Amino acid sequence: MDRTLISQTVNKIGEKVHLRGWVSAVRDHGKITFIELRDRTSTIQCVGVDLPKVTPQSVVYIDGLVKKRPEKLVNANIATGHVEIEIQNFTIVSKAQELPFDMGKEELNLDLPTMLDHRSLSLRHPKVRAIFEVQEVVIDSFREFMKQNDFFEFQAPAITPATAEGGAEVFQVDYFDKKAYLTQSPQLYKQIVMTAFERVFSVNKVFRAEPSVTTRHLTEIVSLDAEMGFIDSWEDVKNMADKTIKYVLDQVSTKCSAQLALFGVEIPSYIENTPTLSLREAQDKIFEKTKRDVRGEKDLNPEDERDLCMIIKKETGSDLVFVYGYPTRKKPFYVYPD
Amino acid sequence: MDRTLISQTVNKIGEKVHLRGWVSAVRDHGKITFIELRDRTSTIQCVGVDLPKVTPQSVVYIDGLVKKRPEKLVNANIATGHVEIEIQNFTIVSKAQELPFDMGKEELNLDLPTMLDHRSLSLRHPKVRAIFEVQEVVIDSFREFMKQNDFFEFQAPAITPATAEGGAEVFQVDYFDKKAYLTQSPQLYKQIVMTAFERVFSVNKVFRAEPSVTTRHLTEIVSLDAEMGFIDSWEDVKNMADKTIKYVLDQVSTKCSAQLALFGVEIPSYIENTPTLSLREAQDKIFEKTKRDVRGEKDLNPEDERDLCMIIKKETGSDLVFVYGYPTRKKPFYVYPD
Repeated sequence: MDRTLISQTVNKIGEKVHLRGWVSAVRDHGKITFIELRDRTSTIQCVGVDLPKVTPQSVVYIDGLVKKRPEKLVNANIATGHVEIEIQNFTIVSKAQELPFDMGKEELNLDLPTMLDHRSLSLRHPKVRAIFEVQEVVIDSFREFMKQNDFFEFQAPAITPATAEGGAEVFQVDYFDKKAYLTQSPQLYKQIVMTAFERVFSVNKVFRAEPSVTTRHLTEIVSLDAEMGFIDSWEDVKNMADKTIKYVLDQVSTKCSAQLALFGVEIPSYIENTPTLSLREAQDKIFEKTKRDVRGEKDLNPEDERDLCMIIKKETGSDLVFVYGYPTRKKPFYVYPD
Repeated sequence: MDRTLISQTVNKIGEKVHLRGWVSAVRDHGKITFIELRDRTSTIQCVGVDLPKVTPQSVVYIDGLVKKRPEKLVNANIATGHVEIEIQNFTIVSKAQELPFDMGKEELNLDLPTMLDHRSLSLRHPKVRAIFEVQEVVIDSFREFMKQNDFFEFQAPAITPATAEGGAEVFQVDYFDKKAYLTQSPQLYKQIVMTAFERVFSVNKVFRAEPSVTTRHLTEIVSLDAEMGFIDSWEDVKNMADKTIKYVLDQVSTKCSAQLALFGVEIPSYIENTPTLSLREAQDKIFEKTKRDVRGEKDLNPEDERDLCMIIKKETGSDLVFVYGYPTRKKPFYVYPD
């Protein structure tokens, strides 16, 4: 019998189906067992009598009848909540060992090493999976918007003969008899490719050998980079970045509402004209509102950025803010004044 | 005046336009100069009188009138071949130095070091650009087909603590006080992510420290990887791979016809049922047709593969062929018999 995907069961009430998936939860009520089954499309409740013992995360095949649930047992929170499967045949394809932690809870609450040591388990938790689902939508929608605006995608190299931004925070690779480095940025490559395609972007890995463990420091990240020719002013770039970010936020908001709901969060809010300040204006504003005097500093530090964002959010409702006009001597040679 | 993209000029006959781009060729006929202008959308012929001297690859702005070309001067080979620009105002934004080689020829004919040392020039040549355009379409259509078939895209790590396939052909990275490696394959990661998403794929960099320089040996490549759960036999995987490859070929054929024409090549041809042989059958066939006896070998070497492909092409018309049934002891531990 051909496999039915769980998402398709809602259109098959009264029919026999063959399902395949992972047992995400088991509830034993004596003779009757409730099994929550998960496949790539969804989850569904299955009910069986006198089933063999099965452990959570086991892989199973289930033959059964799709039945409409009684009105008062409908679960409005899931797509298959108004149906359930009456199990007729139950095959354990691969029985999971006893789990090192409870996968059935709403929160995993694991420390990071445990989470990573059991990646094949922790990844299956809805809240962990959600993070990667949002990641996919962010990258896809960045790519989508770029292509809508004539940007050409190229593959930037990871191994480079020199460092783009200098500094010690670079990983060295033993490249035969030469020294090579993991790229910190596709900057110089995208500027070269731009001369052939005018508008280019790259979704690529960049690497920073920063031993700190903060949300601002990761050794390997996916970088969304773009470069465009024939701008009239830095505001052309700002406007493209602004539209790109807003497009990505809109897509995440639409396509990931379930994932955001799991975390009880909303996407950052934005307004039509994203507030735009020079570094000086930003520093003046921080001084005016917090009395912290960073006027004359050549950059914003993380505390400045947090303060500025809170002030702007309060004044305008926008979580986004542009700051321009950094002194060029703090920046690499290829950076324009604004 | 707002910029007009070159591709839009064909709908603006009789209108004044402002164009921006690179001079891809200059022909000087005394008072009259012909300039081929390139932007991200196309190229177009522009004609001016008493223009200032301009070098190829310079960046220019051109204000001019879009004119229909006389019937006998139409160039059917390019999209803008039935129009030309009568230059009214000509601004050299950035004058190119004298070029190290002739960019105007149909073939660049450069050795690889020269090509790479002048990447910002060589990349602008139509035949070089074409390679990257086909690359983009290959990757896009792989991604498209995967998504159409419920595969989830994840970002596989580049830096790994251990090697997936063993062997000496791995790049070592100085990772703080530890040893780490550049990934040779996302294999183990995709098998883990598969348990959370059932069908997964990854477009990611893999690295091989192989000093040979052949088309089969590159230190850094973009790998298109997929993994699917709940197969009934290896033929499910074969069929998915088969459909994926054919989809990609179809897309390249449709979207890259101009690029393929530049090289005078066609996409590999395929037939509905891609020829599928066991290793033994393949070796028997090679022996039968070439008298070269590789029966009993545990793998196909490059010569075997070439011979087999030629035989299959002749017999069936297919450039594609599947070979299954390799002895598992020649393969890493995670590989199934077929």
